[in-house]
Amino acid sequence: MKIPPVKGTRDFYPPQMAIRNWIVDGWRRVSRRNGFEEYDGPILEYLKMYQIKSGEEIVEQLFSLTDRGGRELAIRPEITPTLARMVNQRINSLSRPIKWFSVPRLCRAERPQKGRLREFFQWNIDIIGAAASQADAEIIFTTLDYLREVGLTANDVKAKISSRRLLAAVLKSLGVSDEALEPLYAVLDKRTRLPAETFEQLLGELVADGPAVEKILAFMEAGSIEEVGRALPLEGDIRRAVEELDGVFAVLKSMGVQDYCVFDPSIVRGLAYYTGVVFEVHDVAGGLRAICGGGRYDNLLRDFGGPEVSATGMGMGDCVLEILLERKGLLDAGSAKPQLQYFVASVDEVFRPKVYEITAEVRSRGHSANFSYKHGGLSKQLKEAAAQNAKRCIIVGQECLDGNRIAVKDMASGQQQLIDIGEFLSQLEVGPDK
Amino acid sequence: MKIPPVKGTRDFYPPQMAIRNWIVDGWRRVSRRNGFEEYDGPILEYLKMYQIKSGEEIVEQLFSLTDRGGRELAIRPEITPTLARMVNQRINSLSRPIKWFSVPRLCRAERPQKGRLREFFQWNIDIIGAAASQADAEIIFTTLDYLREVGLTANDVKAKISSRRLLAAVLKSLGVSDEALEPLYAVLDKRTRLPAETFEQLLGELVADGPAVEKILAFMEAGSIEEVGRALPLEGDIRRAVEELDGVFAVLKSMGVQDYCVFDPSIVRGLAYYTGVVFEVHDVAGGLRAICGGGRYDNLLRDFGGPEVSATGMGMGDCVLEILLERKGLLDAGSAKPQLQYFVASVDEVFRPKVYEITAEVRSRGHSANFSYKHGGLSKQLKEAAAQNAKRCIIVGQECLDGNRIAVKDMASGQQQLIDIGEFLSQLEVGPDK
Repeated sequence: MKIPPVKGTRDFYPPQMAIRNWIVDGWRRVSRRNGFEEYDGPILEYLKMYQIKSGEEIVEQLFSLTDRGGRELAIRPEITPTLARMVNQRINSLSRPIKWFSVPRLCRAERPQKGRLREFFQWNIDIIGAAASQADAEIIFTTLDYLREVGLTANDVKAKISSRRLLAAVLKSLGVSDEALEPLYAVLDKRTRLPAETFEQLLGELVADGPAVEKILAFMEAGSIEEVGRALPLEGDIRRAVEELDGVFAVLKSMGVQDYCVFDPSIVRGLAYYTGVVFEVHDVAGGLRAICGGGRYDNLLRDFGGPEVSATGMGMGDCVLEILLERKGLLDAGSAKPQLQYFVASVDEVFRPKVYEITAEVRSRGHSANFSYKHGGLSKQLKEAAAQNAKRCIIVGQECLDGNRIAVKDMASGQQQLIDIGEFLSQLEVGPDK
Repeated sequence: MKIPPVKGTRDFYPPQMAIRNWIVDGWRRVSRRNGFEEYDGPILEYLKMYQIKSGEEIVEQLFSLTDRGGRELAIRPEITPTLARMVNQRINSLSRPIKWFSVPRLCRAERPQKGRLREFFQWNIDIIGAAASQADAEIIFTTLDYLREVGLTANDVKAKISSRRLLAAVLKSLGVSDEALEPLYAVLDKRTRLPAETFEQLLGELVADGPAVEKILAFMEAGSIEEVGRALPLEGDIRRAVEELDGVFAVLKSMGVQDYCVFDPSIVRGLAYYTGVVFEVHDVAGGLRAICGGGRYDNLLRDFGGPEVSATGMGMGDCVLEILLERKGLLDAGSAKPQLQYFVASVDEVFRPKVYEITAEVRSRGHSANFSYKHGGLSKQLKEAAAQNAKRCIIVGQECLDGNRIAVKDMASGQQQLIDIGEFLSQLEVGPDK
């Protein structure tokens, strides 16, 4: 009986797994040096958790199930609701600011396409309990710190930064009501993905006033914060939102990533829960979906039954990132064939016990080692060593029983030397894996 | 709206996540030095994949769902069927022996209890394409290599080793038919978990012949391979199975783990697909479920539509392991509070840009660093540094603007020195995370 893999999922054979690990290890390393601690939640949560605040698109894409106890559950499509639940559960004992990261496996029943799969991994960083715009800057800096480290330059990617708070202030100054804001965000977020006519029609349904529509479109195309200031009255909420954005850009400049950062008021974000600074990172060449996105979501903990606590965060999936890194030739470090450090061979079957013993000794010092499971001559074993990409071969022969010596052969140069076993093992004391 | 976590799942707050990472990192490190390469599959597979060979218990515990396309899927309860599917898909291009490991997240709708949860992580190591008993020994050695490395001694844990092949030969020599073997394995596997009466009743239903039942029970209590040889005729399949077991023990002795290994014919394993050597590791003190189990499963690839390829493997969950390590006081290494390497503070708000700049520089060299998001005096910042378990504090003051110098304060000793920024950063060049 032959069974295929499930549509939209990936099998990670060792070469693909090496790339995934290289990506995830980088996320972890950069998170930690930026002061984030790792957390994780279950892959199953109550279905209703995603029906509160995640937005319609995500709810439609849920893999949901009813367990034997009649509970309606879902496989997590994002981890932010879990984060809100976990932080709320211990809000009084966690010292703030809470700087946490996670690299969850997520599932969404999307139509599989380039950069979108039904199962993927997503780097999440969040800062909870810090209302200051430095926290927003930290999220953007940490994101860019990773992208810069893997070799992407400011010519390759840009962080497009805007503010829901600014957008709300602008929309309200143009007469848009509070209730119309949320559906309007959803439409504005789709601007570049919809045909211009469809977009303008949807916009017209929500904003009846023609001149206001024009002004909204003009705002979304502003090339700088100054330009917004020239087009609109810099006062009240608009002024405060602009000052907040100025603060974020100032910190990013001090941190040396200003080349990566641009103000782009067309960034809205699809998720319903954003309240302040929002951003997405895009490839400059275009043609790919956003590499990541994030922003401030000050009401989410309250919406999940907790207190009013401010929060800001970012999520980056592995699929678009991997496509971009491959295009830029930056995946080499992650896809290099792993080397086996030692292959232990023998010139005759009688030395087998010594082969097992030396293999175990080498491994216990943190070096990788294999031996052959087949009965075969030395040349066959050396072929197997080469097939396993072994760096060195240890050869056990009569000298081992007579004088405790083994031959160590460098597989690249072919050079070989006899060495005392004890001396050889003592040189191994500090292995790369220990 | 307050939503609880799903029954039988765990929230991994940073301290719990640190322990999980410490366990999983150890599994990975030991796998690699024993020559295994990492793979992974999707968390969703077709439901029918588990209905083939996993055995009734696992099928009953599946979290299954029907997606929008009408496909019947399940969250993986084990990874071996995925492994068989993946290897079969590329059987002709993978060079053998295939030595692969994985650390999948698995879900089973079991009744949550000590050491059994509905979601857990499981270390899997498998060798495919090697019929030799050295491959079985490698699986057992690698398992013990990990347990030994985390500090468990032969007084703490024992690998109990037996053979389905030996058991089958013994049962058939006592007149048990081929068809009765599989249900009999399921009953014999439960021997220590069922009341003696229930067990003997179930056994009697499958084996009508009274003296044969006595002999089966005597076999299962044999304390050594020699004892089996004295009680039963050492010929044919029994002899070959005994020789195979002798071979496994000989390799384990050469590899230096004989103290951990005992022959125990009562080990049967619950899964239906085992065909040869089987083993479980148990805590010597007792009271816990098996820490892990495994064995040879030579027919599984064929049963999944592939060719006849021999295979042997092991699975170890994180739940029982963690309980045992905690009891033995061996979790300290995994649960140490992480240290922040640098907290960057300033004596006045005017130095803030320099704080951001230095933080970014320190991080880019691979060291972790934070700064305060609050406006506050130096003493408040130092308190925040202490709360974040910072090792050192960098203090930016007038000397920084005047002479490019910063104060570096050791948080444990309280000692502080002024140092040139360039000199300080150049000393950081090789960070622990780079």
